[in-house]
Amino acid sequence: MRLLEERILKDGKVYPGNVLKVDGFLNHQIDVGLLRQIAKEFYNLFKTEGITKVLTIEASGIAIACMTAEEFGVPVLFAKKSKTKNISDDLYSSSVESFTHGVVNDIVVSKEYLDENDKVLIVDDFLAQGNALKGLIEIVHLAGAKVVGAGIVIEKAFQPGGEEIRSMGVRVESLAKIKSMTDDGLCFCD
Amino acid sequence: MRLLEERILKDGKVYPGNVLKVDGFLNHQIDVGLLRQIAKEFYNLFKTEGITKVLTIEASGIAIACMTAEEFGVPVLFAKKSKTKNISDDLYSSSVESFTHGVVNDIVVSKEYLDENDKVLIVDDFLAQGNALKGLIEIVHLAGAKVVGAGIVIEKAFQPGGEEIRSMGVRVESLAKIKSMTDDGLCFCD
Repeated sequence: MRLLEERILKDGKVYPGNVLKVDGFLNHQIDVGLLRQIAKEFYNLFKTEGITKVLTIEASGIAIACMTAEEFGVPVLFAKKSKTKNISDDLYSSSVESFTHGVVNDIVVSKEYLDENDKVLIVDDFLAQGNALKGLIEIVHLAGAKVVGAGIVIEKAFQPGGEEIRSMGVRVESLAKIKSMTDDGLCFCD
Repeated sequence: MRLLEERILKDGKVYPGNVLKVDGFLNHQIDVGLLRQIAKEFYNLFKTEGITKVLTIEASGIAIACMTAEEFGVPVLFAKKSKTKNISDDLYSSSVESFTHGVVNDIVVSKEYLDENDKVLIVDDFLAQGNALKGLIEIVHLAGAKVVGAGIVIEKAFQPGGEEIRSMGVRVESLAKIKSMTDDGLCFCD
């Protein structure tokens, strides 16, 4: 998605350790006009799939999920990061290791809102190691629902998550795929 | 807002200790159609104020903030809950006690995205003790920006936050104001 790539080049900030900060338009301040274009792109990619629910994980996925769900006319469901070790019977849960924060979180979704009739589009801002996405896929499978695909805003294609998840048979559509990053900048896949 | 009150009565769940769960449409699963109506209501209430930015706090405020910001055609800014005690020089910060979780979080906003030219509408899902809202107001004031008002989805009007903040001279508009809650149900202010 050209508009997004241009914005990443203009306002993204690259830090050592393959860190890309997009706080100016995606992850802290949010350009809702850009997000609407992203949502429309996800709609175009998945509109024939009979999506019934858009699933994401708090916090920064929520904005993208809401706009995308509005395009599809379906509800959003966001997985919560559990603060307790007590996962109750009425929750689906999965353990997710955070590369950024170096911790393992349980993520949870209420069983009340996801079942075997759902066709789920998972969306998130970043895909790198793929741990959050794998956790969300696990939760959809625990519910007996179908993962129709994943819509990702920015994929670090030089990290293994995207290929691992595609090799599981999940359709992953990333609107900006970064081929390589150096301390000086980044370049996109063709 | 009648539509919202009806939805709270239909799908809200009341638990002992004045807990109201709206996980079915606002805080876990999100009814984006209802949220769009809420956003339009906030727009109508504040449209003459020259709003330049919509501010909220992660996580559950983000959805409301995005839809509202889209109505105004301005960016969203969401305060992050800081995981470190190291607040750097480039952040505005405030300490917020969470009634629900019994902890104190620092919330932070990058100085880069808020300045003295901003006219800020703060939005959030709930207002009860008012701690999150007071923290967000403090951050706007630290930036030298103007708090135009606060748009709240559900106010627990039997708790002190709303009146305290109104007595500070801040315009607070709550779309559903709960007068009282019992274990059997709730009733709204007229």
